[in-house]
Amino acid sequence: MTHKIAILGASGYTGAELVRLIATHPSMEIVALSGDRKAGMAMADVYPHLRHMDLPALCKIEDIDFANVDLAFCALPHATSQAVIKELPATTKVVDLSADFRLRDPAEYEKWYGKPHSAVELQKEAVYGLTEFYRDQIKTARLVAGTGCNAATGQFILRPLIGAGVIDLDQIILDLKVAVSGAGRALKEHLLFGELEDNSFGYSVGGKHRHLGEFDQEFSLVAGRDVRIQFTPHLIPATRGILATAYVQGEASAVHYALADAYMNEPFIKVLPLGQVPAMKHVRGSNFCHIGVVEDRIQGRTIVVGVIDNLTKGSSGQAIQNANLMLGLDETAGLMNAPMYP
Amino acid sequence: MTHKIAILGASGYTGAELVRLIATHPSMEIVALSGDRKAGMAMADVYPHLRHMDLPALCKIEDIDFANVDLAFCALPHATSQAVIKELPATTKVVDLSADFRLRDPAEYEKWYGKPHSAVELQKEAVYGLTEFYRDQIKTARLVAGTGCNAATGQFILRPLIGAGVIDLDQIILDLKVAVSGAGRALKEHLLFGELEDNSFGYSVGGKHRHLGEFDQEFSLVAGRDVRIQFTPHLIPATRGILATAYVQGEASAVHYALADAYMNEPFIKVLPLGQVPAMKHVRGSNFCHIGVVEDRIQGRTIVVGVIDNLTKGSSGQAIQNANLMLGLDETAGLMNAPMYP
Amino acid sequence: MTHKIAILGASGYTGAELVRLIATHPSMEIVALSGDRKAGMAMADVYPHLRHMDLPALCKIEDIDFANVDLAFCALPHATSQAVIKELPATTKVVDLSADFRLRDPAEYEKWYGKPHSAVELQKEAVYGLTEFYRDQIKTARLVAGTGCNAATGQFILRPLIGAGVIDLDQIILDLKVAVSGAGRALKEHLLFGELEDNSFGYSVGGKHRHLGEFDQEFSLVAGRDVRIQFTPHLIPATRGILATAYVQGEASAVHYALADAYMNEPFIKVLPLGQVPAMKHVRGSNFCHIGVVEDRIQGRTIVVGVIDNLTKGSSGQAIQNANLMLGLDETAGLMNAPMYP
Amino acid sequence: MTHKIAILGASGYTGAELVRLIATHPSMEIVALSGDRKAGMAMADVYPHLRHMDLPALCKIEDIDFANVDLAFCALPHATSQAVIKELPATTKVVDLSADFRLRDPAEYEKWYGKPHSAVELQKEAVYGLTEFYRDQIKTARLVAGTGCNAATGQFILRPLIGAGVIDLDQIILDLKVAVSGAGRALKEHLLFGELEDNSFGYSVGGKHRHLGEFDQEFSLVAGRDVRIQFTPHLIPATRGILATAYVQGEASAVHYALADAYMNEPFIKVLPLGQVPAMKHVRGSNFCHIGVVEDRIQGRTIVVGVIDNLTKGSSGQAIQNANLMLGLDETAGLMNAPMYP
Repeated sequence: MTHKIAILGASGYTGAELVRLIATHPSMEIVALSGDRKAGMAMADVYPHLRHMDLPALCKIEDIDFANVDLAFCALPHATSQAVIKELPATTKVVDLSADFRLRDPAEYEKWYGKPHSAVELQKEAVYGLTEFYRDQIKTARLVAGTGCNAATGQFILRPLIGAGVIDLDQIILDLKVAVSGAGRALKEHLLFGELEDNSFGYSVGGKHRHLGEFDQEFSLVAGRDVRIQFTPHLIPATRGILATAYVQGEASAVHYALADAYMNEPFIKVLPLGQVPAMKHVRGSNFCHIGVVEDRIQGRTIVVGVIDNLTKGSSGQAIQNANLMLGLDETAGLMNAPMYP
Repeated sequence: MTHKIAILGASGYTGAELVRLIATHPSMEIVALSGDRKAGMAMADVYPHLRHMDLPALCKIEDIDFANVDLAFCALPHATSQAVIKELPATTKVVDLSADFRLRDPAEYEKWYGKPHSAVELQKEAVYGLTEFYRDQIKTARLVAGTGCNAATGQFILRPLIGAGVIDLDQIILDLKVAVSGAGRALKEHLLFGELEDNSFGYSVGGKHRHLGEFDQEFSLVAGRDVRIQFTPHLIPATRGILATAYVQGEASAVHYALADAYMNEPFIKVLPLGQVPAMKHVRGSNFCHIGVVEDRIQGRTIVVGVIDNLTKGSSGQAIQNANLMLGLDETAGLMNAPMYP
Repeated sequence: MTHKIAILGASGYTGAELVRLIATHPSMEIVALSGDRKAGMAMADVYPHLRHMDLPALCKIEDIDFANVDLAFCALPHATSQAVIKELPATTKVVDLSADFRLRDPAEYEKWYGKPHSAVELQKEAVYGLTEFYRDQIKTARLVAGTGCNAATGQFILRPLIGAGVIDLDQIILDLKVAVSGAGRALKEHLLFGELEDNSFGYSVGGKHRHLGEFDQEFSLVAGRDVRIQFTPHLIPATRGILATAYVQGEASAVHYALADAYMNEPFIKVLPLGQVPAMKHVRGSNFCHIGVVEDRIQGRTIVVGVIDNLTKGSSGQAIQNANLMLGLDETAGLMNAPMYP
Repeated sequence: MTHKIAILGASGYTGAELVRLIATHPSMEIVALSGDRKAGMAMADVYPHLRHMDLPALCKIEDIDFANVDLAFCALPHATSQAVIKELPATTKVVDLSADFRLRDPAEYEKWYGKPHSAVELQKEAVYGLTEFYRDQIKTARLVAGTGCNAATGQFILRPLIGAGVIDLDQIILDLKVAVSGAGRALKEHLLFGELEDNSFGYSVGGKHRHLGEFDQEFSLVAGRDVRIQFTPHLIPATRGILATAYVQGEASAVHYALADAYMNEPFIKVLPLGQVPAMKHVRGSNFCHIGVVEDRIQGRTIVVGVIDNLTKGSSGQAIQNANLMLGLDETAGLMNAPMYP
């Protein structure tokens, strides 16, 4: 059986990535693509790499007949997303890729995103989309909130450690090396090739990055107490990928065991042998996450490194993984393509 | 039905690309991977991006039981390839990715590759693997010789023009912009990141590139007379892709028509509307080829631009396309994954 | 003696490159920097790499006291440039880096730039700034028009050949590989890192690039007859540099001799031994131009390859070279810094 | 007065960088260049970007007449360096760029570099070449040991903090983002363009990097007690530059003050206003170091970010800065060229 899919906000990178993945998905069919400013254009004119596909033209959201849609991926900017989703028919399942439904507490949303939430009811209903940890709730959810890409990476490496109680909760430092596509196709000076080649810099330094809202919420939930980590992302001259280096205080063997145990049966998360670290490109273009653990020379300190592709496991691949569960499909359907290397 | 596949020379980039593509191929199963110098190693230790796959360890070729192999991809260096293939049982179908069986005339082989051919009988039997032009012969072949990646790109844009007689055969200039993975994983100074970033240079300039042997053979065959083109490849700081710019003398409309007509029903080759040109990244990681035609301001001159991914359509994807035909499978099986962009 | 310098339009890449070069120039002092939209800002806030320099803040052009300025570099957009320059006092020497005074024929200007010229008198007076060929006129000029960066590269390799009559004037093809900084700091989608990495594409294909106006003017002048070349630039994923590949019909030895002879005493132009080709990065960040000549396998065909840094020899370095002459300084003053490699 | 300079080991990146910088140095003249395996070759054949310079050919060290050499830069591999330097005449001043004389304790040398030191007497005499902190001793030294590039970066940001007692000495974490040229021109698989593009990975993770020997020595010396930091470098797809992110426990204002105070009169080290961070490319190709300090959201935690160019301030520029002092020249001679941006 083929499920009918709409992608709202298909003209951004996460929209294009959804189309790329659905292209070879065995049970999904794209029936509508919205892109308000580009309504009327062929998708191949916005993304010529999709030229070979037979896709509907971009349209306005109001022109989509949702009676004909089983599930909508919503790849719109935050704030826009909540306004759109609250108007969708209740029969349409929704995977939202924006930040709008990640934070359960409206005050936290307002704190990090700078304005009140306009769909508080939906916010309550939404399930946080970190599949490996919310699998059962996602299966029956109507609305799933995809995680931030940085937030996903950090949680994959830290969440089991917090849950297992093997690290000091007050001494967690997370340093990210982030490729540029996470910022989308926006026209910003620091995203220009000439600016970023041979360059790197921290951003939102000092605990200002919005994904901290997710870390605070989730880590505190797991720990049963307030947890605040230090988190600094750095842009590097790469297009896809996030490499997260976590500095934790705890025994390496216990840290490694907690991760290996947590992910033993996970199809997409691979824990390397103790002492090995993964590289960002080892998961490029795929839905996989690789995690490595190394003991520091200082007794009781451990480094944990995790890598994902921000557009796939960090966003659109995760979204399809969740959609698979919501539609009763095999969780891995359409997602087992191998990383592209070199 | 699943066909049993061996990959000889799996530790190079084309070997890894074959594994990547077969990972989601519906009817192929990898039963053996050879890598003489790395025999005994797990594939995931050579290519950690394949960590999630359940693959046989690398072995020596002599340890493979070919009775259990339906088709072998041979991704060995040239010269080695001919020595290995002539020892394989006649019941094993072979797609060779090296240069060893591309040139039908042993004298031409010796001229371009510097030593006599040691498997002349096989050379006669081998079918040239440019699928779109040798489809029927490939279906019944036992041994198919994959084309050079530059040779494939040049032929996709020029072959129909020579066939249709719409360009001056004595004034063909082909200028290529080539990504670095075509050179393989070899340790050469000019392939280092620090050397190639912010760099570009021509190589084999002046008509010294070995793929000219293929152009000479194929274009002369199509034209029914000797054809010699000018061909200069340039390395650019990119990992995957070839962009070919052909300068031809002929009317743009006739050139465009000849291409559009030739590829009208081809699943992998897309001709853009007259006046548009493709970009290298529009086919990255995929088996597609995009072609554009533009009229020059000088009357009677036309520019034709074609792009492929050198590792996919230029090598391993093409090899699987040919293997599909040889095994009676759908030609596109396992190859419809969309390009990875951005 | 120190000459007082103003840079109009200092907030663009060519403005910043002028400042970089003047930082170690023995006889120039920057007294004014304009940047209309950024007036009031410190240069270090626009370009933090200049933080160590003691520079005037950005101001509006009308706030500059030109009585105190010996020479103004005008790095403004075309059209703006002519409007500004015609208001400058006649005592201020001007090196213009825009396209406004490159074309002597107002009709040609209008053809390529789409509107009538508004300073036709100045256009007549302006000297074309290709130093090596207009040296004597530049020495006494009040207004020098810097060349296009692509136009400079093409002329360095072709001009002596046309002058010496060693190539067929009707069969000249010029294929450029161009780094992205030539497009400036403009916010355009195709200049984003994520779009350009692992990418390449032709632009202004078919003889539509504006620098053709310069080629037509200069090559026809040298030849004493109309000359029209084919010219196709391609963007590559690099920040600085132009690599030009010219396909000409003429004997390689004569071609090589014409170039070696023309540039024998030039401090910035180096002709390689016959058969060798230069790489783009060999001149990065410098005012040098390297040229190589290779004989093609086809009798009577020759490939000529030239490289420059578009921001230095192609723009700001050339501008300083011209200013040196106009101010009676040594032509190489401040310009002998070696290329940055790797 | 011009000083006569020999560069031993001129065929590596630091050797080439020395030549680049000396090209415009007002008081240094290169009289000898050694490169054992390339003896007899012209420097322009090893590094064509130096083609415009009039340089001696590469020779063997034993063919250099050191009576004619005022100062030798020794850019040889470690272990080789000590063997060569102990044979040089005592009248030749030496700046060593290898690791051989950085560690004062022979046992530490053996621990980190795996074999006993063979020139222990010289090791005692050598001055550690971190100019800003050893200036007076360098002025009168005969042998100066250039620091590691990572070690320099870390010390620039941490040393004043340890000295001022404003941070917790047991909670220092240093996370580096390192460009590839630090690894030299060596042919290693992970340095290939195709491997590193779109990639990033930690190396020597867990406190295994040799530059820790320098940190341990210097930080303990400054603190007057044993200090052990956590230090993890990560390779990123860039050619030049190091970006160091230090996570420290101490008040941001005190941290900022300590740095601003320490470097107030330093010509090459620039401390940004509190709250701002530098970017790697802001110092590319130059001898500058930019440092930024940001307060974390967690009370009492501070992030310090520093950037240098590993080949310039991290190696060859630092070496010239030291040589300037040793030769009685202005410390900044030949080093005030502005960074190359973009």
